[in-house]
Amino acid sequence: QAATFHKVIMGLYDFLKECFSGFWDYETPKVMVVKNRTLGVIYRAVQFLVITYFIWYVFISQKAYQDSETHPDSSIYTLMKGTAVHGDDILDSVEYASPSEGGDVISTLLRRDITYDQKQGTCAEYYKVENANCSKDADCILGEVDFNGHGRRTGKCVQYYNHTFKTCEIQSWCPIEEYAVVREPALVEAINFTVFIRNYIHFPKFKDSLDPYCPNFRLGYIASQARESFSELCRTGGVIGVFINWDCNLDLNPSYCKPTYSFRRLDVRKDEDNSGYYYRFAKYYSKNGVESRTLIKAYGIRLDIIVHGQAGKFSPIPTIISSVTAMTSVGICTIICDWIMLTFIDKNEVYSDRKFDEVRKIASAFGWKIQSNICI
Amino acid sequence: QAATFHKVIMGLYDFLKECFSGFWDYETPKVMVVKNRTLGVIYRAVQFLVITYFIWYVFISQKAYQDSETHPDSSIYTLMKGTAVHGDDILDSVEYASPSEGGDVISTLLRRDITYDQKQGTCAEYYKVENANCSKDADCILGEVDFNGHGRRTGKCVQYYNHTFKTCEIQSWCPIEEYAVVREPALVEAINFTVFIRNYIHFPKFKDSLDPYCPNFRLGYIASQARESFSELCRTGGVIGVFINWDCNLDLNPSYCKPTYSFRRLDVRKDEDNSGYYYRFAKYYSKNGVESRTLIKAYGIRLDIIVHGQAGKFSPIPTIISSVTAMTSVGICTIICDWIMLTFIDKNEVYSDRKFDEVRKIASAFGWKIQSNICI
Amino acid sequence: QAATFHKVIMGLYDFLKECFSGFWDYETPKVMVVKNRTLGVIYRAVQFLVITYFIWYVFISQKAYQDSETHPDSSIYTLMKGTAVHGDDILDSVEYASPSEGGDVISTLLRRDITYDQKQGTCAEYYKVENANCSKDADCILGEVDFNGHGRRTGKCVQYYNHTFKTCEIQSWCPIEEYAVVREPALVEAINFTVFIRNYIHFPKFKDSLDPYCPNFRLGYIASQARESFSELCRTGGVIGVFINWDCNLDLNPSYCKPTYSFRRLDVRKDEDNSGYYYRFAKYYSKNGVESRTLIKAYGIRLDIIVHGQAGKFSPIPTIISSVTAMTSVGICTIICDWIMLTFIDKNEVYSDRKFDEVRKIASAFGWKIQSNICI
Repeated sequence: QAATFHKVIMGLYDFLKECFSGFWDYETPKVMVVKNRTLGVIYRAVQFLVITYFIWYVFISQKAYQDSETHPDSSIYTLMKGTAVHGDDILDSVEYASPSEGGDVISTLLRRDITYDQKQGTCAEYYKVENANCSKDADCILGEVDFNGHGRRTGKCVQYYNHTFKTCEIQSWCPIEEYAVVREPALVEAINFTVFIRNYIHFPKFKDSLDPYCPNFRLGYIASQARESFSELCRTGGVIGVFINWDCNLDLNPSYCKPTYSFRRLDVRKDEDNSGYYYRFAKYYSKNGVESRTLIKAYGIRLDIIVHGQAGKFSPIPTIISSVTAMTSVGICTIICDWIMLTFIDKNEVYSDRKFDEVRKIASAFGWKIQSNICI
Repeated sequence: QAATFHKVIMGLYDFLKECFSGFWDYETPKVMVVKNRTLGVIYRAVQFLVITYFIWYVFISQKAYQDSETHPDSSIYTLMKGTAVHGDDILDSVEYASPSEGGDVISTLLRRDITYDQKQGTCAEYYKVENANCSKDADCILGEVDFNGHGRRTGKCVQYYNHTFKTCEIQSWCPIEEYAVVREPALVEAINFTVFIRNYIHFPKFKDSLDPYCPNFRLGYIASQARESFSELCRTGGVIGVFINWDCNLDLNPSYCKPTYSFRRLDVRKDEDNSGYYYRFAKYYSKNGVESRTLIKAYGIRLDIIVHGQAGKFSPIPTIISSVTAMTSVGICTIICDWIMLTFIDKNEVYSDRKFDEVRKIASAFGWKIQSNICI
Repeated sequence: QAATFHKVIMGLYDFLKECFSGFWDYETPKVMVVKNRTLGVIYRAVQFLVITYFIWYVFISQKAYQDSETHPDSSIYTLMKGTAVHGDDILDSVEYASPSEGGDVISTLLRRDITYDQKQGTCAEYYKVENANCSKDADCILGEVDFNGHGRRTGKCVQYYNHTFKTCEIQSWCPIEEYAVVREPALVEAINFTVFIRNYIHFPKFKDSLDPYCPNFRLGYIASQARESFSELCRTGGVIGVFINWDCNLDLNPSYCKPTYSFRRLDVRKDEDNSGYYYRFAKYYSKNGVESRTLIKAYGIRLDIIVHGQAGKFSPIPTIISSVTAMTSVGICTIICDWIMLTFIDKNEVYSDRKFDEVRKIASAFGWKIQSNICI
């Protein structure tokens, strides 16, 4: 038994020995050195271009040795300040700014179309609504609700407020906005309102928070930076983007990292109908037990605060990857120079003969060879 | 002195000459050409697969020659339209849509549970609240505030409104919602409400803005696209995502770039308790100097408008990087074919002998050689 | 004619035959095998390091075989719960939480500075406003609006409420907040308020939705996790980020994918003036036909719910790319070992002679050779 065991062990040993005989050999490609000055110059020139590109563009300009984070956590707090005189009334930020909580979208009203004292009831439909004009009750279908209208038709044809023509009567908030609206002049003093923006930013990958910046911007400054006329904005309203851009190199002191601010109008103006910015809201009152409301169509500026942030910090992984890519790319030089050498410079096929070692088929019969060495 | 100087210069010249003697040499790997048809076919086939993969998948399908931008600036403006008849009342968008400012989240109410005319005072606690049932004052602890209850206990045990049993009295907004609530029928006409969405988009990397698209969607259409029943939504409320997807090839005319819209419900339904969407708000009144409120529990649809954008434009850098990667990958063919050649085809080890040039150790003693040429 | 045609065809055939004669040849680099144990060990050691790095770090730790998605669609629904006793009043979530719609930003008020019963009228300006102190009417310029003041000066100098000194009279909401404000004590019971967070998440690339998680957090727990004192927050207000982090391996069962929650204060505290969180809003009343308002300056906690999500799933493309990169990087070993071999180990330049096959310029005259074979 001991002899058999010894034999098996020796057989296994021989097998493994043969397998690993080549394991510690070092293999390196054979290289042909061509002593041709033209080719050498071309080769070094291409190499120089590739290396320059990597060092200058990839490493210095693109900072490929840094790990980067492009989507930081961001939190915005905004606060509007300023007082405007409006006829006999004074408006403060509680009245013109909304929403009051001060997030990343804040709007201020610049002009109001006010419809006072609406109540649920019946009144004449707006004459521009389809099929609203009528001359007798039969023209108005009871219960019909027109999509662009203001309410449900009662089936009567009534005088259009203090005008001489008639329209269908509707059940609605009365009187209708189009008839009773009072157009207020624009809040020109809003040009001096300021908006305070506090932007907290944090790069989770680097666990780096940056001190928030808290600038105050005048609305007039914002409009002029967005190249918009403030009086035009007062007329139609508009959405303006406030772009905060943090571009930080965290290898330096984080205090060097300061945001830049830019402003751009975000509602298109090609097509007048879809431009501008307005919204409607109402103040509700209880008057002698009856609910009434003041409807306000507010034209204003909405500020959308949009934060871009990117930060980079040295990291070994991207450095290794970029270096490997750079070295690999240098190999491209050889491909280019080989092509030049073999195509344009080869004299009497000397280079070709030396570079290429041709091996012709020796065995005439072809078949799959069963490998004795299964280790490779 | 001149002679010494001359000597130094000449020495330096000789040194540099030797150093740079090989600098302009061109080095290229020596290659063995195997005239074996089987191997040639395998080699070309693998090469064809790799090249096809790169040309078709990487360059044509994935557009690896383009620089891409996946996080555009986006700004949303929404506006709800439509009129609903509700008993004797007419509801317009001011009353059912919130918030009024029209941002990327907008909700419309579909059903209201209204508690009219609540005032600060004392009344009976809801009987389902823990320990709220009582038979005598001693059962109620003065000053206790139950987390799921409505207020602070006064220590008295009182009749539960017009019922015969008793619960602890609390200081609260009275009467409590559970007792006094009036469940209104759903606003079925809301199926015809429309929401206007204006989506401005800008790709900062390419300084390309796109004309906003301003579609109007019916709520009924949105619900059916999200495969939800509108009447079910009226019952429980729900959050629906409106996904706007811009996929732009800026090498073409930007006007070809049109967004696609899709809709999906965002609140789960497996677990009934946590599904749906509702919120509470109140309208406040001053009645004879006493503040009172109408509490509204609103079930509704909240639309979350979520924008995805990606744009690509030709850029030399990614083109170079992808090309280099493609060329490098072609080298994989050689590895595969070498393995096949040496394992299966090698006849009498002819190929192996020619490919591998074995160099045995010549000097028996081993030691680090100090290089005379420190330039390499 | 047939003969000419035959000739042309034969010529073309010969031309193409020559062109493609080398097409099916297989080319492989010639390799020198160095039987040097030291070099072999170094080579294998470097190879081992590179392969270990790729297998362990790139494939196992970084999951390079997965396609990843880092910007999922997310939708947040929040709901505040709890009841607070405030003097004789009970506050419920309708009164302290805003906005009521429950999105990704929700705030609760903790302390109120209330100015009751303001009306449009004339009253004395706050004495700390620049140039507001006066002794005679001539000190006050009619129509002037100070930016930090409360309204437009009427040109009169009046007594400062029930004090003995005088300030300029202004047209404003009267009385001014600074004089008439009532500071309420903090809502200490708010520490037990809970916020319910429902976070829906969807990875569009993988078309994988995850069941929303619906935790309830106590405000006191949130403050302690953010390492803030609740009583300090009651005093100044603050913005706290609730970070929800989904890190999902979708190759496993999606039900294993659970979010983690962390909390961090987002308003800086270095610079006291810009810290904290407050906002102002008003409740409007109609009193005998005159509009009046209760102005509330609310200090509170604003919760910004910020979602991070990343998911990975096996995909052939990144697997191929990572494998190719790994194989390419193994080539770096050869560069390192070549340098060691040629610099430190080379005995009598034996290796160098065998590796490098030097080809000297043979033809003395140099010129561009016009290729007869245009196929290559």
